[in-house]
Amino acid sequence: MGAMNGMRPAGGIDGSGADGSGGIGPDVILKAAESFGSPVYLYDERALAEACGAVLSMPNAFGLSVRYAMKANPNRTLLKLICGLGLSIDASSLNEARRANMAGMGFERIMLTTQEAPEGDEMRALEEMMRRGLKYNVCSLRQLYNITDFAAENGIGLSMRVHPGIGSGESVTRNTGDDYSCFGVHLSDIEKALDFARGKGLRFDCVHTHIGSGGDPAAWRSNVDLELKIAGEYFPEAETVNFGGGLKVARMPDEKAADIQALGEYARGRVEDFYRRTGRKLRTEIEPGTYIAANAGYLILRVTDKKRTGADGYNFIILNGGMELNTRPLLYGSRHPFYIVSKSGELKFSEFGGGTAGSRDTAYEAAVVGRCCESGDSQSLAPDGRLVPRALPEPDIGDLFVVGGTGAYCSAMSLVNYNSHVQAPEVLYTRGGELIEIRRRQTLEQLTANEL
Amino acid sequence: MGAMNGMRPAGGIDGSGADGSGGIGPDVILKAAESFGSPVYLYDERALAEACGAVLSMPNAFGLSVRYAMKANPNRTLLKLICGLGLSIDASSLNEARRANMAGMGFERIMLTTQEAPEGDEMRALEEMMRRGLKYNVCSLRQLYNITDFAAENGIGLSMRVHPGIGSGESVTRNTGDDYSCFGVHLSDIEKALDFARGKGLRFDCVHTHIGSGGDPAAWRSNVDLELKIAGEYFPEAETVNFGGGLKVARMPDEKAADIQALGEYARGRVEDFYRRTGRKLRTEIEPGTYIAANAGYLILRVTDKKRTGADGYNFIILNGGMELNTRPLLYGSRHPFYIVSKSGELKFSEFGGGTAGSRDTAYEAAVVGRCCESGDSQSLAPDGRLVPRALPEPDIGDLFVVGGTGAYCSAMSLVNYNSHVQAPEVLYTRGGELIEIRRRQTLEQLTANEL
Repeated sequence: MGAMNGMRPAGGIDGSGADGSGGIGPDVILKAAESFGSPVYLYDERALAEACGAVLSMPNAFGLSVRYAMKANPNRTLLKLICGLGLSIDASSLNEARRANMAGMGFERIMLTTQEAPEGDEMRALEEMMRRGLKYNVCSLRQLYNITDFAAENGIGLSMRVHPGIGSGESVTRNTGDDYSCFGVHLSDIEKALDFARGKGLRFDCVHTHIGSGGDPAAWRSNVDLELKIAGEYFPEAETVNFGGGLKVARMPDEKAADIQALGEYARGRVEDFYRRTGRKLRTEIEPGTYIAANAGYLILRVTDKKRTGADGYNFIILNGGMELNTRPLLYGSRHPFYIVSKSGELKFSEFGGGTAGSRDTAYEAAVVGRCCESGDSQSLAPDGRLVPRALPEPDIGDLFVVGGTGAYCSAMSLVNYNSHVQAPEVLYTRGGELIEIRRRQTLEQLTANEL
Repeated sequence: MGAMNGMRPAGGIDGSGADGSGGIGPDVILKAAESFGSPVYLYDERALAEACGAVLSMPNAFGLSVRYAMKANPNRTLLKLICGLGLSIDASSLNEARRANMAGMGFERIMLTTQEAPEGDEMRALEEMMRRGLKYNVCSLRQLYNITDFAAENGIGLSMRVHPGIGSGESVTRNTGDDYSCFGVHLSDIEKALDFARGKGLRFDCVHTHIGSGGDPAAWRSNVDLELKIAGEYFPEAETVNFGGGLKVARMPDEKAADIQALGEYARGRVEDFYRRTGRKLRTEIEPGTYIAANAGYLILRVTDKKRTGADGYNFIILNGGMELNTRPLLYGSRHPFYIVSKSGELKFSEFGGGTAGSRDTAYEAAVVGRCCESGDSQSLAPDGRLVPRALPEPDIGDLFVVGGTGAYCSAMSLVNYNSHVQAPEVLYTRGGELIEIRRRQTLEQLTANEL
């Protein structure tokens, strides 16, 4: 199971489908495109289950709950599958909690950690969800103040997301735990928050931190230390510590996934130490999103055009989709593995080696662009937005071009209707080898239905 | 008319609504939020009309057509308004051409300039549109080859987007005219393309270049020179030159809008020179999108929370919307003006000066963030993604927070459903002073309607 040992991503199109092992092979890619058209998102149930198995197997001291960060991919069928395997839910908005519930999850399996500070009808909706078991992870003083009377009257224990204020001026961006981000009740407000809560008879049975380590295992470990320190100093009634997400996934061959076993062993040791010091047995929670879904997803596109822009320019591979389906390269400079599958279902190229069209060493280089009239519409970008040609064999017009690692934050976080393109369908490749449509392609009528 | 003289953007919330002059005032902002909720996009018909008037008044030698680049904002009502004022359409996809037609535009008023290379049913659809008058601006050799037989048989003249290959290694990003971008038939392919076309009896009656000048007037002028050179050397039958877009709009007080009059005078001079040299009277086309719509649009949000992240951290203003409604700051580091309107409809702050809450000099600074659980969810970002606190008075919870310059590439190009938020409604403030809903708020049921 590649996702567990950090050697290579789970999934990948390596021809294993054709040899009967049940993985996603080029035949499955071809069949998905033929059956549902392209662009289409394809998810591999087996890879999803393997990733869920990996996180559920994380070593722990006194119990583990894994909450799927559903903002990564909130498709109803995927939620059912993931939760059917034993995960519960990390919701980032009231609407996400609603969607999880619509997918069959009881509110007692959902924790809400949101930037929203609901009022009016939305506050009433939140209270109803809490009555039905939703765990509310307050993220600001205001969120705390707003829920206090309700929680105290109903004897409902809360969770608190603590902003640990770690990080420094060296790291002023994209670290969700440092002083330059806004997530959680800041440590400098914590006495105020807890004094208030005590005065109201509120109980915090869970404490949460997430420092957005970006996959750095050292940062993940220091978050464990920090959170246990916070739990010890400030949260005497906490029975659960939630370490957030930040489990890195390896999309590209040169990337290394988080070592779930090693991180878990570390956290187990610290939680056991905490028990020895305090006599408190803390349950552990984690909230993976990317780690669960990223490598279970493929975006199947088609090569519709090619060009070269002069002797000193680039080769371009033009696809029938791009930034409106996977915006991550433009948003964050993320890299994704590419695969090419011929019209007859032959694997011509895999980022991980193999393919009949020759290795990358003999290949040409091309910038891979989409169908939008936008200079940033590319699947091969540097973090600064520059096009970066990639080494791969020259595809033929009509070849399928697959962008891997697109199960998380792609269908869920994209410029979906830009240039008036309709939302692409989502298809699941089941363990039984079936292709099942789990979200239909949007129609132009739907796209314009709310116009008056 | 600010948009014309480059002094300040058209529109802006300056209290003029209250004094009866008919502009957008804080009273209109308040009424829009009260009537349609927030978040909501608000468009000012008068500002839209002023911008249309400005571009239609561009000096020209032998006639001018202005095509609205509808990808900037394809709302049906806005399309009707803009086209009712005399503009025609620049469509970037077959779906955009369909939407323009659904809004009442005849295909004879639409030019299609797309990265798509349609095949099968989509090619049949394109042919039908061309029979009905759509002008097809071929952007690659393949697009040319694919349409040749149909266009030749039906005697339909084509346009060609030429990739001029200008720019150099100094500018390897975001210049849609240099060798490191893929748009158009590259000059190094032009002989091949034209030989082919001549052999088939094809006629090019229009030539198009767009170098994505990013608003640099010198680049815009050099594009005019270049295109006329190309028209002279390669396109003896061309009757129209289309100079594309690239007309800069000023969103922020320190930005300077394109001087439409000066650019037009320049182009007129060159087109007249061309006539003197060749005897050919070329009609001019331009394709503004941002220039038309950007400053006619406001995104009305509400302050739902505030916090400070420690002594060395930032103040944060937390809004009930952000990156999912205006992704441009995260995509491109774009800056937008802010306004604050109190719950009683008082203008507390305007980026352009004024407001009752004191000037920016006495103000605190705050990073402005949204409701998504994402470190990049902010309306105040640097191009590298860092949060950049902005000077403004501290708002109260419940104040309306308005992000200006959001009429273009916001509603149309955003991560609309991220965190399962529903698409915000669009409202038009008419010349008559009415607020009309032109797109309803999406429902959660619609958001999940295609899930199976």
